[in-house]
Amino acid sequence: MSYMIKGEAAAIETELLKDYRFGQQQLIEIWGQACALAITKAYPLSSISKKQPTVLVICGPDQNGSIGLVCARHLRIFEYEPTIYHPKRSSQNLHQDFTVQCEKMDIPFLSYLPTEVQLINDAYNLVIDAMLGPGSDISNIKEPYLGILGTLKQVKIPIASVDVPSGWDEEEATQDGITPEVLISLTAPKKCAASFSGKHFLAGRFLPYDIQKKYDLNLPDFPGTDSLIEL
Amino acid sequence: MSYMIKGEAAAIETELLKDYRFGQQQLIEIWGQACALAITKAYPLSSISKKQPTVLVICGPDQNGSIGLVCARHLRIFEYEPTIYHPKRSSQNLHQDFTVQCEKMDIPFLSYLPTEVQLINDAYNLVIDAMLGPGSDISNIKEPYLGILGTLKQVKIPIASVDVPSGWDEEEATQDGITPEVLISLTAPKKCAASFSGKHFLAGRFLPYDIQKKYDLNLPDFPGTDSLIEL
Repeated sequence: MSYMIKGEAAAIETELLKDYRFGQQQLIEIWGQACALAITKAYPLSSISKKQPTVLVICGPDQNGSIGLVCARHLRIFEYEPTIYHPKRSSQNLHQDFTVQCEKMDIPFLSYLPTEVQLINDAYNLVIDAMLGPGSDISNIKEPYLGILGTLKQVKIPIASVDVPSGWDEEEATQDGITPEVLISLTAPKKCAASFSGKHFLAGRFLPYDIQKKYDLNLPDFPGTDSLIEL
Repeated sequence: MSYMIKGEAAAIETELLKDYRFGQQQLIEIWGQACALAITKAYPLSSISKKQPTVLVICGPDQNGSIGLVCARHLRIFEYEPTIYHPKRSSQNLHQDFTVQCEKMDIPFLSYLPTEVQLINDAYNLVIDAMLGPGSDISNIKEPYLGILGTLKQVKIPIASVDVPSGWDEEEATQDGITPEVLISLTAPKKCAASFSGKHFLAGRFLPYDIQKKYDLNLPDFPGTDSLIEL
């Protein structure tokens, strides 16, 4: 399997949207649902230690955040108890719609993230990091995300990151960054995933063969009808 | 479990689109993917008798047809060999996009349906009927669908219908209509499903609990993380 260098994920997405006429909404739904399934594999309800299967989903302002919102919605359907922290909402209708879908399904939204880390450790079984994603300018991370990353570096409960751990460079792990237990790669792993040593999933099974070939992705065979695979 | 009377499916969909701010594209993707999974359950690759796992997907002009297109695309990803017959294409961008996605994935489109039924029996393992769906005016079925129904009544390979068998009334089976082997109900079974005696699936697991309650749907529990259940 090959790793995608900087810009390749964006180029593939542009091709899917322009040439294949996929919709952004459609892709985000596919990816978010696949992320939720990865979480159910990595942390099945039966394995969850706290009484309630609570999950804190931290959503960024852009596409990675919307994938987090879809993931939270499907986790709710799978009987988990997600809580969302979505500090900066996008002005785009598309992203707002995903927010409303969660609100209307009575998924609670936090108005702020406790700075007292123990409160997070006590309240949730895990954190889903759907904040910055690929293509973020990590040399210039602004608030509130800088503060959130500071908090996440201290939490003791596991973190599962969507696509690229927040604060990591797409091409290499950030030395003093967060250390997720699980990484859910979308489309194909980004180069930084090569230095990730936790549980690694590839999620979202829909990529046209011509695109897989063109970008030399060498994706593994997904088992049966699963939409994800543990790498 | 309760059956939906005429108009309820449409009312639920309106609520999902207006109040919950789901997108039509998003719903069609969810339903089409779930239909493909139902087909893999009903007709697993290992059970298919012909050398090639060919499937003929007949798509109508509206939403049911688009669900068929999404189903065909996912079947292709699951290593089936779908062929699409889509005689009347919608002028709506949304539906056209689903068509392009299939075309770009090299799924063949028939330009006409053979009237010689034996050709269909010989070429395909099964037919997916994604033609008319709920809400169609079955007292006034026009060409080419009338002719297609005539052909489907004669085919010897199994038919799997999406949501409502084409030509059936939403509330009761049509006596001289087609007799599918499989019915894939979306959202919840329509009343006509009560008189269906084949393999019956409920597919698409995403419906907000408040809607399930409001419409008294009494949906069964989906097993594990499955997005479908055999009823």
